[in-house]
Amino acid sequence: MLNKTDFKHRRDQLRSSLEAKALHGLLITHPPNRFYLSGFELRDPQPGESAGCLFIDAQDEDWLLTDARYLEAARRLWPEERIFIYSSKTVAAIKNFLLSQGKQHIGIEANAMTVSMFESLTAANDSSISLNLVSTNGLTEALRLCKDPSELEFLRASCRLNHELMNKIPDWLSRDLTEKDLAWKIEKFFRQHGAEELAFSTIVAAGRNASLPHAIPGLEQLPLNGPVLIDAGCRLHNYCSDQTRTFWLGNLPTSDFKSAMARVREAQEHALGHIKPGLPIAEAYQAAQKTFARYGVESYFTHSLGHGIGLETHEAPSLGPNNQNTFLPGMVITVEPGLYYPHWGGIRWEYMVLVTDDGMEIL
Amino acid sequence: MLNKTDFKHRRDQLRSSLEAKALHGLLITHPPNRFYLSGFELRDPQPGESAGCLFIDAQDEDWLLTDARYLEAARRLWPEERIFIYSSKTVAAIKNFLLSQGKQHIGIEANAMTVSMFESLTAANDSSISLNLVSTNGLTEALRLCKDPSELEFLRASCRLNHELMNKIPDWLSRDLTEKDLAWKIEKFFRQHGAEELAFSTIVAAGRNASLPHAIPGLEQLPLNGPVLIDAGCRLHNYCSDQTRTFWLGNLPTSDFKSAMARVREAQEHALGHIKPGLPIAEAYQAAQKTFARYGVESYFTHSLGHGIGLETHEAPSLGPNNQNTFLPGMVITVEPGLYYPHWGGIRWEYMVLVTDDGMEIL
Repeated sequence: MLNKTDFKHRRDQLRSSLEAKALHGLLITHPPNRFYLSGFELRDPQPGESAGCLFIDAQDEDWLLTDARYLEAARRLWPEERIFIYSSKTVAAIKNFLLSQGKQHIGIEANAMTVSMFESLTAANDSSISLNLVSTNGLTEALRLCKDPSELEFLRASCRLNHELMNKIPDWLSRDLTEKDLAWKIEKFFRQHGAEELAFSTIVAAGRNASLPHAIPGLEQLPLNGPVLIDAGCRLHNYCSDQTRTFWLGNLPTSDFKSAMARVREAQEHALGHIKPGLPIAEAYQAAQKTFARYGVESYFTHSLGHGIGLETHEAPSLGPNNQNTFLPGMVITVEPGLYYPHWGGIRWEYMVLVTDDGMEIL
Repeated sequence: MLNKTDFKHRRDQLRSSLEAKALHGLLITHPPNRFYLSGFELRDPQPGESAGCLFIDAQDEDWLLTDARYLEAARRLWPEERIFIYSSKTVAAIKNFLLSQGKQHIGIEANAMTVSMFESLTAANDSSISLNLVSTNGLTEALRLCKDPSELEFLRASCRLNHELMNKIPDWLSRDLTEKDLAWKIEKFFRQHGAEELAFSTIVAAGRNASLPHAIPGLEQLPLNGPVLIDAGCRLHNYCSDQTRTFWLGNLPTSDFKSAMARVREAQEHALGHIKPGLPIAEAYQAAQKTFARYGVESYFTHSLGHGIGLETHEAPSLGPNNQNTFLPGMVITVEPGLYYPHWGGIRWEYMVLVTDDGMEIL
């Protein structure tokens, strides 16, 4: 487990980027960033209702701002003299608090702050003083891009539980189950083995549904002699896992299924060969895409190759053709090529992969 | 189930408020509002990642804007010729699309749009043309304030399942369970009886933990002869339920417990007597507060009386002392007074209540 010093170390790294921008501090409102920097509340209670925010002070100790519901949780993580509790009129309270501390020139997370909050924070107060907010994006995300040892430990544990799940599936597959039944069985397995929640809504897509990358589990029974695509992940120790396997229910996989499977696995193998520190991220996508093109099936590969994963299921980097960056040691990404055929179904196969110092490791 | 005409009727009500504001249309980005107005995707895949938005056109047919993952789901609900699919560079694509349709003067949901999206939408395009965005708040929420018959049916069903759960709890209470075990048992009950998900993280707070309104279920076993506060809710047919009961595990409730229980129930009874169309919402809070004050325990009642509930667990109206509005028929609210004593625990008792034409009904 991380302790208060570990979280402070992360905030110190962030702090060093604030001085260059001549900011008095940075207001953290994106829940996973808040958690990464403090250990406080990974999630908000509901969309549009915040559990609190951090003020990273460029020069002084940082502040945790929250409401009375979270005071107990805050005390466990944070020195009480640096906790600010607001009651109603939240945003006005935050504005007046920052101004009272002499903090006026403040960075915000533009991807995570609402227009309403921005408008209220920048409105003048009774003394005609207002905050000067500067949009930033990706400052904390840049730190989160490469996972530290504690994060890797949690990601490995989350992925290990995912492997255990996928190992069970062949025994579970049965015509007596609907897609929805199987999705619930998967969720119970994760939860009964310690996961806090699903990392995302489980996809169980049988038969032609397997051709829909975003299929929603339905109420029909699994068809005999058809594909069953399962894309599932859990959150364990706060970190997400995400794997896809495509199974065949029955004894007679069709040649369409077998050849699509062989091509997907070949494309994945080629993509994995292009994952190494210093190599362009876009080339991994292209390696998969070119493999499909050699068989003339590239138009059936309709999404990107994968995405970063950590406190969020989808985080940087995106493994698409337009990514301009290179792989870095410590990145954890998914590699998930797929081929989708509306008339019979589809195949996707997804690994979680760690970029190591000299290559990659499948988790 | 609602059909396309029902959703269009809701959008027509919204549309009528746009003309007065001289807007070309309104961009809906808050997920529950999007769902309420179209039936499309109640939730986003993760915080900061949108499933799509609606453009409510002041003069013409409305648009559904989303990415390719959701095309199948969109087609089931929406005429294909009014679906706009964006790929990467989402916000620039939305901006160019709106400008190409001659829509320049557009209302936004300031509570739900990020500063980043606002900045990108208002940046000039290649022809130096930009969108003129006008902040609005609460337009769709005003429609959602009073529930229509189909919503009431779903809220009744969700609350009914919640009652079934609460009826089970006395049989389930046991020293062999931890708070966390019991929370998971509750979640399984809801899910196995048709709920899509929990409406919020279940609170199971035993002993002194019952004094924390926001307690997180822990790993200690339930104590014999102590209070067990359970605040639980599910989402069924997309609508939330939310009820709290406080039980005593063992045969010997203390006099502290019994007198706090009697006062909470008396405060609730008095509050319910002030729920009627036309009466000030704040008076219901004050009725509870004054009951506690007669016993000199008002300082142990540390939160508001309740909140609206529907597609979101917490929605308007808030039943606090500062609410300036009156009750309206069709509102569905929670009434949940509580008393919290750090040295032994606490009591909360919560009903869901419908404001009827001439009073109220406990659901």
